[in-house]
Amino acid sequence: MSQKSKQRRLIDTDIHERATYSELLPYLDNPWRRYIEDNHWMQEKHMPYTQPTVAGVDRADAVTPDGGAAGSDLGFMQQQLLDENGHEYGILTGALDPSPSSMHGWYEMATALASAYNDWQIENWLEKDDRLYGSVHIAAQDPQQAVREIERVGSHPKMVQILLPIDKTSWGNPYYHPIYEAAERHNLSIGMHHNEPPTHFGDWPRYFIEWHTMVPTSHMIEVSNMVFNGVFEKFPNLHLIMIEGGFTHVPHLMKKMDQQYKELRHEVPWVNRMPSDIVRDHIRFTTQPVEEMSEKEFMQYVDQMGSENMICFSTDYPHWDYDSPLQALPKLDKTLEEKIFSENARASYPKLPQMQGSVTT
Amino acid sequence: MSQKSKQRRLIDTDIHERATYSELLPYLDNPWRRYIEDNHWMQEKHMPYTQPTVAGVDRADAVTPDGGAAGSDLGFMQQQLLDENGHEYGILTGALDPSPSSMHGWYEMATALASAYNDWQIENWLEKDDRLYGSVHIAAQDPQQAVREIERVGSHPKMVQILLPIDKTSWGNPYYHPIYEAAERHNLSIGMHHNEPPTHFGDWPRYFIEWHTMVPTSHMIEVSNMVFNGVFEKFPNLHLIMIEGGFTHVPHLMKKMDQQYKELRHEVPWVNRMPSDIVRDHIRFTTQPVEEMSEKEFMQYVDQMGSENMICFSTDYPHWDYDSPLQALPKLDKTLEEKIFSENARASYPKLPQMQGSVTT
Repeated sequence: MSQKSKQRRLIDTDIHERATYSELLPYLDNPWRRYIEDNHWMQEKHMPYTQPTVAGVDRADAVTPDGGAAGSDLGFMQQQLLDENGHEYGILTGALDPSPSSMHGWYEMATALASAYNDWQIENWLEKDDRLYGSVHIAAQDPQQAVREIERVGSHPKMVQILLPIDKTSWGNPYYHPIYEAAERHNLSIGMHHNEPPTHFGDWPRYFIEWHTMVPTSHMIEVSNMVFNGVFEKFPNLHLIMIEGGFTHVPHLMKKMDQQYKELRHEVPWVNRMPSDIVRDHIRFTTQPVEEMSEKEFMQYVDQMGSENMICFSTDYPHWDYDSPLQALPKLDKTLEEKIFSENARASYPKLPQMQGSVTT
Repeated sequence: MSQKSKQRRLIDTDIHERATYSELLPYLDNPWRRYIEDNHWMQEKHMPYTQPTVAGVDRADAVTPDGGAAGSDLGFMQQQLLDENGHEYGILTGALDPSPSSMHGWYEMATALASAYNDWQIENWLEKDDRLYGSVHIAAQDPQQAVREIERVGSHPKMVQILLPIDKTSWGNPYYHPIYEAAERHNLSIGMHHNEPPTHFGDWPRYFIEWHTMVPTSHMIEVSNMVFNGVFEKFPNLHLIMIEGGFTHVPHLMKKMDQQYKELRHEVPWVNRMPSDIVRDHIRFTTQPVEEMSEKEFMQYVDQMGSENMICFSTDYPHWDYDSPLQALPKLDKTLEEKIFSENARASYPKLPQMQGSVTT
């Protein structure tokens, strides 16, 4: 472990471990198992672009020593990520593409895959490294089944959030509220991570660079949708973490929502305070892929957000645009740095071990 | 005219004049005329929300003295808007909902409607008030026909821009480049204004407040699409004005595009400089609907954009959320104020009368 990184606590809010179908087979019952084993069924996957590296969307140097996909080997991840950076904790967000919640049709298969993934994750990752905490994957197309899955694995001590993919689903919709009810019941946070499907007027933009530039717009849509649908009034203990969307879009979004609320609040009477206050209290944003910037620029964004508690560091390991804890952010004030690298995440995941005398409340 | 407003030059970059179908009939040939007159054909229009005022999306007090739709009467607009605020110039952006460029199918009818609208606009507005300048409406679904329409009316001395609706069309697509070629040929700018269709994963969000909050995301998609498709390298004299989307999203967008360009420029080798420089040179953003903010907050956005030349004032008359030139912005430095209220727009519309010794270049 490098001495430099040992100097600060680090909670990494976005690590992608990866399962292959063959690894999931032992966790699947028939007929689901047979569809993959005998029928060679695969999930839809269509990203129509050349990929940024020879390892696709992953770091080329994260391919495992025996040639396996990046993120597929715990030992190698421990060495390359957790030990190297001195992680206190890391939150696993998976890499089953697309998420079961994004599968079109055949929700039963999606439900079976989510369950198998959760069991595989618990056995092979969460119970093998004290530093790793996990995400409950669900097939939200059928909220009743999704809630059953949350009930089944959500009380596992290493499960800290329910993962919802950002796709074409408006997650504020009352149809999905049973999921938030279950989250509160199990002290789980909600993590939202964009999935591969389109954000561009519902279609694919022409280039990967466009798609990647536009990722925050889909995060903005979800935040606005959650706020104006009154989710945080209905579930006052809910924590929402927006993952892999960065944070530089947040000042605009807060300002814009507030202005619209001043003018149009009669339309959403269930929202009973300023959207920016709701965001400050309930929503966190993970840093990666953070733009290169000076401390002055960074602090301007923090000033515009009106809070030091909203940004949580993430590496997004093993993706191609991995952010190093040592290099990604400018030098910041020590207290703020502590919040961003660990304490904001700790406060947003109630099931993470809490510090005695923590600086955040 | 109020004394206060007379103190500064004002170029208003977004005024919605409105035509009824019956007014357009004299400008339509058969069979198009007959579809409306005999078959009572109407354009699609589906905004599925309650509207913010009794006059729909318009100011209730802008309904004309004889009960006509807001924006439909030149005399009343002169009195309520142009005389009252001492406008030097105003850019008309129309209110034919949806824009002919957004009509699904039947492009021939869309082309006929765009032509009729342009003739009606020239005769009843542009040639009746020296202060008013106009937008060439087109049916871009058929770029050849669109170019014909630009050739037909684009050289009219009061036409200053081609209007493109922000809808589900990615305007950077090479399919539309003949339109930009025609724009350069006629010294016309491109104005983009969101239309009524969805920006929310391609579908309608649940509430008007959500739709209205998310309007800038569709502006972001178009700017990114225009930049990464290399439109401004191919058309180095093109001016793009993003209308009715505000500007507080722009710092994030510039920062984000630059970062992606640093990492992924190999994918778009025709883009040969930093996206933020392209934006600063070619793209302007109209203020309305501007968020209430202090001078300090306003200047933070200007600082983040790295230019005082990118913001142009607009009232958006007669919409419900009209911004008054006297009240919408905080008190600003005199030179910056002059740029925002007039000189930035003058520099972005080459066909507007230029000042001797103008402060902008």
